[in-house]
Amino acid sequence: MTNKDARTPASVQDAQSEEAGKSIGWHKAYVEGTRPDLRVPVRQVHLTNGQAVTLYDTSGPYTDPLVDTDVRRGLPPLRENWIISRGDTEEYAGRPVRPEDDGIKHTSPRGGLRNLDAVFPGRPRQPRRSRDGEAVTQLAYARRGEITPEMEYVAIRENVAPEVVRDEIAAGRAVLPANVNHPEIEPMIIGKRFLVKVNANIGNSAVTSSIEEEVEKMTWATRWGADTVMDLSTGRNIHTTREWVLRNSPVPIGTVPLYQALEKVDGRAEDLTWEVYKDTVIEQAEQGVDYMTVHAGVRLAYVPLTANRKTGIVSRGGSIMAAWCLAHHRESFLYENFEELCEILAAYDVTYSLGDGLRPGSIADANDEAQFAELRTLGELNRIAKRFNVQTMIEGPGHVPMHKIKENIDLQQEICDEAPFYTLGPLTTDVAPAYDHITSGIGAAMIAWWGTAMLCYVTPKEHLGLPNRDDVKTGVITYKIAAHAADVAKGHPGAQEWDDALSDARFEFRWEDQFNLALDPDTAREFHDETLPAEPAKTAHFCSMCGPKFCSMKISQDIRREHGGTRTEIEEGMAQKSKEFAASGNRVYLPIAD
Amino acid sequence: MTNKDARTPASVQDAQSEEAGKSIGWHKAYVEGTRPDLRVPVRQVHLTNGQAVTLYDTSGPYTDPLVDTDVRRGLPPLRENWIISRGDTEEYAGRPVRPEDDGIKHTSPRGGLRNLDAVFPGRPRQPRRSRDGEAVTQLAYARRGEITPEMEYVAIRENVAPEVVRDEIAAGRAVLPANVNHPEIEPMIIGKRFLVKVNANIGNSAVTSSIEEEVEKMTWATRWGADTVMDLSTGRNIHTTREWVLRNSPVPIGTVPLYQALEKVDGRAEDLTWEVYKDTVIEQAEQGVDYMTVHAGVRLAYVPLTANRKTGIVSRGGSIMAAWCLAHHRESFLYENFEELCEILAAYDVTYSLGDGLRPGSIADANDEAQFAELRTLGELNRIAKRFNVQTMIEGPGHVPMHKIKENIDLQQEICDEAPFYTLGPLTTDVAPAYDHITSGIGAAMIAWWGTAMLCYVTPKEHLGLPNRDDVKTGVITYKIAAHAADVAKGHPGAQEWDDALSDARFEFRWEDQFNLALDPDTAREFHDETLPAEPAKTAHFCSMCGPKFCSMKISQDIRREHGGTRTEIEEGMAQKSKEFAASGNRVYLPIAD
Repeated sequence: MTNKDARTPASVQDAQSEEAGKSIGWHKAYVEGTRPDLRVPVRQVHLTNGQAVTLYDTSGPYTDPLVDTDVRRGLPPLRENWIISRGDTEEYAGRPVRPEDDGIKHTSPRGGLRNLDAVFPGRPRQPRRSRDGEAVTQLAYARRGEITPEMEYVAIRENVAPEVVRDEIAAGRAVLPANVNHPEIEPMIIGKRFLVKVNANIGNSAVTSSIEEEVEKMTWATRWGADTVMDLSTGRNIHTTREWVLRNSPVPIGTVPLYQALEKVDGRAEDLTWEVYKDTVIEQAEQGVDYMTVHAGVRLAYVPLTANRKTGIVSRGGSIMAAWCLAHHRESFLYENFEELCEILAAYDVTYSLGDGLRPGSIADANDEAQFAELRTLGELNRIAKRFNVQTMIEGPGHVPMHKIKENIDLQQEICDEAPFYTLGPLTTDVAPAYDHITSGIGAAMIAWWGTAMLCYVTPKEHLGLPNRDDVKTGVITYKIAAHAADVAKGHPGAQEWDDALSDARFEFRWEDQFNLALDPDTAREFHDETLPAEPAKTAHFCSMCGPKFCSMKISQDIRREHGGTRTEIEEGMAQKSKEFAASGNRVYLPIAD
Repeated sequence: MTNKDARTPASVQDAQSEEAGKSIGWHKAYVEGTRPDLRVPVRQVHLTNGQAVTLYDTSGPYTDPLVDTDVRRGLPPLRENWIISRGDTEEYAGRPVRPEDDGIKHTSPRGGLRNLDAVFPGRPRQPRRSRDGEAVTQLAYARRGEITPEMEYVAIRENVAPEVVRDEIAAGRAVLPANVNHPEIEPMIIGKRFLVKVNANIGNSAVTSSIEEEVEKMTWATRWGADTVMDLSTGRNIHTTREWVLRNSPVPIGTVPLYQALEKVDGRAEDLTWEVYKDTVIEQAEQGVDYMTVHAGVRLAYVPLTANRKTGIVSRGGSIMAAWCLAHHRESFLYENFEELCEILAAYDVTYSLGDGLRPGSIADANDEAQFAELRTLGELNRIAKRFNVQTMIEGPGHVPMHKIKENIDLQQEICDEAPFYTLGPLTTDVAPAYDHITSGIGAAMIAWWGTAMLCYVTPKEHLGLPNRDDVKTGVITYKIAAHAADVAKGHPGAQEWDDALSDARFEFRWEDQFNLALDPDTAREFHDETLPAEPAKTAHFCSMCGPKFCSMKISQDIRREHGGTRTEIEEGMAQKSKEFAASGNRVYLPIAD
C-alpha cells in the first residue's frame, strides 16, 4: 500500500540520510504521531524520476541502520510506557518456569531447574496483568471510546482516521493483538476494513530445527512482509524458543497452547486436563503471546460427523481434542471452561483465534456438516468472548474448491457477527503437493477479496516436510501477492497506487525502479540480469523477453512521441494526415466510425 | 482428470508391461477407438493398494518406451491416413522456401539458398491443401454432421460422447486445431465444455536461445502438461526452428505470423504489406501451424483510445499493427483483407486465434474503452470466420484486478457467440515481477472457472527475461493447477476423482502413491526426502511437518480404529460408553444436542 499522508515530508523522519537511501533505492523512515514515542515505520522507495513511494513495512528495527539490534538482548520495549501509563496493569511474581515447560522431565538426566535468565539472557522482566476489576484489552478501551496509542499507530499505518480503528475494534470487526507482556511489537490491526494481513508459521518440530533457526525464520518472514508469526513449536525447548522469538519479534506472535500442553503429558491426548492446559495458557500469556488458537469448537457431538470424511480431522489441535473427547466420552474441556479461559485471556489482552479443528483436509470434505457445525459453535463462543472484552478472530479452512469458497466467508461473517476471518489458504485442489503455496494462494486471494482479514500462509513444503528459509520466503511472497491482489480488488484506499507506480516504471523502462518497487527486489533483479547482466541493460528500452525490435512498450512509446502523447493530439494528428492524404488524391481516406 | 472408461481393461493397450510400469509407479497406455489406428494415450498410475488411476496425457510418444523417437526424423504422422482418406485435400508443389524465411538477406555473406531438406533432415513431404471447392476444416465436418477420427479421439480423451464434441465444434463453442499439414499431432479440443487447456510459449528471441533449445523446451513443456505450444520465435532461423518444432510436436502449434513478416521487412513496421503477410501465412500453413494469432482487431480508430493509458499497447502484434496504421494513416491491412485470410486458413484448417492487441498491460488499464472496442471487432471477425468455416478462438487479457475479471469472460462470451476464450493470465497485481506465474495463476484459475477454455501460461521470467527450462516447467505446473482447480470448480466429470485419489493416499500414508499422483512427482518426492530421506519414511504414518506425535491424520486414523470407522459405529460406541459411564454413577454424562 502506498501511504499518501506519509509522503508529507514534515511527518516523515528519516532513519538514515535520504542520500544514503537513494543509493540503494529505498530507506527506512518513520511517520510521527501525536506523541514523540509514536513513530510508525515505513519503507520509502526512491524512484529515479525523483518521486518517492511509501510502502507498509513489517520488517521491524532490523532494517533500521540506526538501531543496534542484538538477538540476545531483544528488541526495545516500544509500548512499555504506553502500557504502564494506563495504570490498569501491575507486575507480579508470575508462574515459576519449570523444566517440563521445555519438555524436560524431572527424571531426565539433562533436567534440573532452570530459570528464564539462563535460557534468555536479555532483559529480565516480571510479567504483568490487569489489576483487579480492570478491563485492559484494546476491545475494552475501544468500547469506552478511548483511542489508545496502539490504535493511533495502526491508523497511521493503514492511512485511516483513528476513529475508524476504534470503531472497528469496538464492533468486534477488527482485532489489535497486543499482549501487555509483549511491549516489543509494532502494533497492527486485523479486520476487513484494513489491509489484508499475512501470517507465517514457524516452529521446530520433533523431527528437526533449532531455536536459532526459528528466530531467524521469524525475522526473515517479517523481512518479506509477514504481519504476524505463529510459533508452532513442539518437542523440546518449546518455552525457550518462544521466549527468544517473542523478545525479538516486531510483529504479534500467535501460538496453539494445546501443543505445549500435550508435551507436558508426554503426548498422550487422553491425559490432558483443564488444569494442565490452563497452566500452559498462563505460562504463554506471561511470556507475551499475542493471540492463541483455541480449538474449543470441537465438541464431542461433532466428532462422529467426521467419520465418513475422506481425510478425517486434519487440524492437529482438532484431532487432539477429538481424541480426548472420545477417550473420556465427554464434552471438550475447552468448551466447558471457556468462560474461565476468557477471564485469563482478558487479563493480558491475549486475542482469541478460535481454531477450526474440523476444517476440511481435502476438496472432498469441504463445506460439510462437521465443518459448519463447528463454525456455529465458534459463533457462540465469539459472543461469549466479547462479553469478557476478549478480542476474537475466527479461523477458517483449509481445502475448498473455488466454487465453494464464497459460502465459507459469507457464513462465517453471518454466524460470527463479522469477527475477523483468518483462513489457511484455502487450497483449491489436492493434486499438487510441492506447489501448495500456489494451489492455496489462488483460494487465499479470492477469500480475502470477499472479506477475509488475515491469511495464514502455506509453503511449498506443506504436506511434505518442514519449510526451510527459502520456503518461508516463497510462502510469504505468495501470500503477500494474494493479500495485495485482494486489497486492489476491494478498492482499499491507496492499494492500487503501488501497482500504478510499478507500471509507470515499467512503461518508462526505469528498470531499477521496477526492482525496488517489487515485492521481491532481489529476485526480480536477479532474473533480469540472468540474460542481460550489463549495466546499460538497466536503462535499455527493452528486455531479453522480446528484444529491442519487438518491444511493444518501446513501439508504444514511439507512437506517442511521433503522434502526440494525448488522445486529442493523436486524433488531431490523424485527422490532419487524413486531410493531406485525401487532398493528395492518391487514395481516399476512410475515417473509421465506431 | 481421471478417465473412467479408460479403466476398462479391454479398452486399454499397454505400451509397456504393467509389471514394468508398476515398478516406477505409472506407465503409458492407450485407449483404442473404433479403428485400430485410433489409440488415445493415457497415463496409468498404479497405486500400492492395487488400484489404478488414469490421467490425461499430453507428453506424446516420448514417454512411450516402445516408440523410438528421433528429433532429426520427427514423430510418426499419426493422422496422415485420416487426412488422405477423406479425399478432400491434395498435395501441391508449395511455396519455395527462401533464405529470408530464416531471416537471411540475399546480400548476407552467410546467405544463399537453402532448402528444407537441408535444414530439417526428416521426412520430405509436399504440402497439402483443400481441393477446389472442398471445405476441409473440422468445423465444416461438424456442421455436416460428420464425426471425424479426430473428434472421436478427443471424445475418448475427454471422456464424453463423440456427439458432444461434434456439437460443440459445430456451434463454434469449441475448436480442434489440426492443420492438414501437421499429421503428427494427437488431437485435442479447446472449449468450455471440456477440460481447461494450457498453452506454453517458447521461441528464441533476437537476444538469446537456439533451435535445439526450443525443440527441447517444447517436449519439456508437453512432458509437464502443456496442451498446445506457441512458437514465438523472432530473429534468425525462424522458419527452420518452426519446422523442427512442428515435426517433433505431439500437440498443436500456434504462431503469430506477424512476427516473421516483420523480420522479412527488416523490423520496420511501416514497410509491412498485405502481400508479405499473406506470403508468411501460407509459408507457415504449409509447414503445418495449427493456429495463428491474428491481430485484425487493432483498427486505426482504436489507437487513440490507448493514448491516456498507463502502459499503452503491450501486445507485440498490437503495437506493430498500431504503428503501421498510424504510419500510413489508414485502416489495418489485416482487417481489410480478413476475408481473403479466411480463405487461406480454411484451405489448411488453420484455426484463428484472434489476438487482443489492445489488451491491458497494467491493472490501471484493465477493461478500458480500447480493450472492449477491440473485443467488439473480434466478435464481428469471429462471425466472418465462421462463414468461411474457419475455427476460431478469441484471445483475452492480460492484467486485470480480481473484481474486473468476470466482466471479461461474460462480455467475450456474449460478443463472440461463445467462441472459446483464450486468456493470458490475467495478472491480478503488478507489484510482483519474478512471481507473475503466481499473480496470473490466481486470475487464470478464476477466469477458467467462469468459462475460459484455454490459458496461456506465464513464467516467473515474465517482464524480465526469456524463460529457461526451469521457468517453463514452473509456468506449466502453475497453469495446470489453475486449469485443474477450474475443472473441479466447474464440476467437470471425473475432475475431482484425481484429487480424491490423492487425498485417499494422503490419509492412508501411501507416500509413493501421493508422489506418483502429484502434478510433479519429482519435486514432491524431493521435498519429502529433504528432511526424511530414509526408505522407511515412505511408509511412515507422519512426515517431518508435524512429526509422529502431532500428526492429525494419524490421530484421526487411531480414532477410527478405536471407535469404529463409520459415523454409526462411532455414535453407537459413544452411546454405549455413555451408558456405562452413567451406570457407574460416577458422573452424569450429558449427551450433547445440536
